[in-house]
Amino acid sequence: MLFGKENPHGGDIYGRKVRLDFSSNINPLGTPESVVAAASAAANKLRHYPDPFCRELVAAISAYEGVPGDRILCGNGSAELIYAFCRAASVRKAVITAPAFSEYAAALRSVGAEVAEYMLNPNTGFELDDGFLDFIAASGADAVFVCNPNNPTGRLAQSALMKNLAVLCLEKNIRLFADECFLDFCENAESLKNEACGNDRLFILKAFTKNYAMAGLRLGYCICPDRALLKKMSEQTQPWNISTPAQRAGIAALKETEYLEKARRLICEEREFLSESLSALGFYVCPSDANFVLFHGPCGLDRELLKRGILIRSCANYSGLGPGWYRAAVRLRAENEELINTVKSICEDKKWQKA
Amino acid sequence: MLFGKENPHGGDIYGRKVRLDFSSNINPLGTPESVVAAASAAANKLRHYPDPFCRELVAAISAYEGVPGDRILCGNGSAELIYAFCRAASVRKAVITAPAFSEYAAALRSVGAEVAEYMLNPNTGFELDDGFLDFIAASGADAVFVCNPNNPTGRLAQSALMKNLAVLCLEKNIRLFADECFLDFCENAESLKNEACGNDRLFILKAFTKNYAMAGLRLGYCICPDRALLKKMSEQTQPWNISTPAQRAGIAALKETEYLEKARRLICEEREFLSESLSALGFYVCPSDANFVLFHGPCGLDRELLKRGILIRSCANYSGLGPGWYRAAVRLRAENEELINTVKSICEDKKWQKA
Repeated sequence: MLFGKENPHGGDIYGRKVRLDFSSNINPLGTPESVVAAASAAANKLRHYPDPFCRELVAAISAYEGVPGDRILCGNGSAELIYAFCRAASVRKAVITAPAFSEYAAALRSVGAEVAEYMLNPNTGFELDDGFLDFIAASGADAVFVCNPNNPTGRLAQSALMKNLAVLCLEKNIRLFADECFLDFCENAESLKNEACGNDRLFILKAFTKNYAMAGLRLGYCICPDRALLKKMSEQTQPWNISTPAQRAGIAALKETEYLEKARRLICEEREFLSESLSALGFYVCPSDANFVLFHGPCGLDRELLKRGILIRSCANYSGLGPGWYRAAVRLRAENEELINTVKSICEDKKWQKA
Repeated sequence: MLFGKENPHGGDIYGRKVRLDFSSNINPLGTPESVVAAASAAANKLRHYPDPFCRELVAAISAYEGVPGDRILCGNGSAELIYAFCRAASVRKAVITAPAFSEYAAALRSVGAEVAEYMLNPNTGFELDDGFLDFIAASGADAVFVCNPNNPTGRLAQSALMKNLAVLCLEKNIRLFADECFLDFCENAESLKNEACGNDRLFILKAFTKNYAMAGLRLGYCICPDRALLKKMSEQTQPWNISTPAQRAGIAALKETEYLEKARRLICEEREFLSESLSALGFYVCPSDANFVLFHGPCGLDRELLKRGILIRSCANYSGLGPGWYRAAVRLRAENEELINTVKSICEDKKWQKA
């Protein structure tokens, strides 16, 4: 939990009147019924400690990912694994992109690691380019963090670039932390897990949070061929970090393949609608491959939307972005229309424009 | 979660046929209905991230403990707070008792801290004595871990000794980590929280796990006047470490004062029954003030019980104990009778005695 500091993230609907949350990037179809049922049924098993080995869950992830179970470690949300990775890998200097998910830098700070930022170019829609490889090669870093597709831009890196990155990191003995938490929402996306066979520098992060809209439960996992690193990570966390409801819900979720496929199709359509509608309002919209879009609009738009019960993510506090940048999750058509119509009415309000 | 190692704890009922679990020390009345209902209802709110500030839960704990909310930090189980404490306090050398809960040493090892053990004397029933103060004063440690009542012995330290310990630690600038996770089950027990006002070296650990039989959910908290330490601890953990079901269940649990009072009375009676019955079988039984008893019996008793579906905690791997030492939770009368009768029938089985 956060103590005595500002919340730098989206999704904090508490203590505010939020009718529609576009600030957290979760599956627009909501939590599958089977997952709700599994979590609810687990409430009858609370007197027992959770399985400290997550035996059944790891077996289910192993089958789903096609990866041996001894290369999988679960976490209390994927965020816990970011912190455990930084500690167990003893990261001294890391390269991250700017913008990027802010927990990388927070976790790196928590272990006293130096952070080198590779600035993504807004003029090319923040696309990851080959200059990244040169930057890493010259950086002297021992770890690289890449989110693919990137959060908050929504951009997928080219598959060839990611493969070259993996090869470079292996050659240079640099750990490659590849955050693929949003990858399952992308069409025709390729996971780096297929490169993991001969590359023990690879570390792939995945989450249930987004795919199955179970952010409230906390469940993530990682895939890594370096078993010694996973062992060290598990020694840095307490033995029962995955609650029983999370374990049961995760097992149920992995059976929901049609649900995920349906979400992927819906997101593809709705992302187009949202992007085009925001563009039509005169905003710059970053081309997205993910279940959210980054756009640039008038300053204070987020505050005006919140007055009307709609929460979007201000990206003012992202390194590489600033005031006027916003991220909005792709939701269902009626919800997306409501966002667009509300933004439109705010922008047409002349009183607000003068203020 | 544990990865590629043995589970050193009790309560692992998975992958075994366990009918009755005496190995985890939780409230024998089971999970209150209101807690089950709150956790179950939370399954309908999973699409949202949990409140990263645990606002409502912290307010409830603050009212329950009579401590300001800015001195409270919640954790994903009390175990998470042990690890976060060791990191944030940068512990270099710590004093622990032997025997003691094994996660103190595990967490201390994870930060590379040195551990000095104060051996408790079996001849005085493992009671904490004044020699502990001298040991600490001469130790050069920067942290002391005390569990009161102690796990696995069940012994409460004398109130005056605990107060002297708090004063000594303040004088010597040593952090005192007082684990009071089982204290609410003891009659006439005094919490060190009343000493916390002028003593910022004090750190008090509490858990919902035991009091309300919600081990599967993971929820603990600490009370500490040193706000800078709490802030540092929160920076070492991810922002959403307490799941929504855990937050909702915790809020419901704190309203269950009669339930806890009823459990206290029941435990007092049943502990006597269990202790006397085990003594009558010729075993040494440590005088306990908690909801579990430590006893010494024949080697292999735990394996024989497990064959019959009953799990007790072998304490062979505790420093300061060894083979033949066992811990059993205090449960309901019929369950306790079943344990005693099964132990009796095992001991009367001559074939087993010879083996």
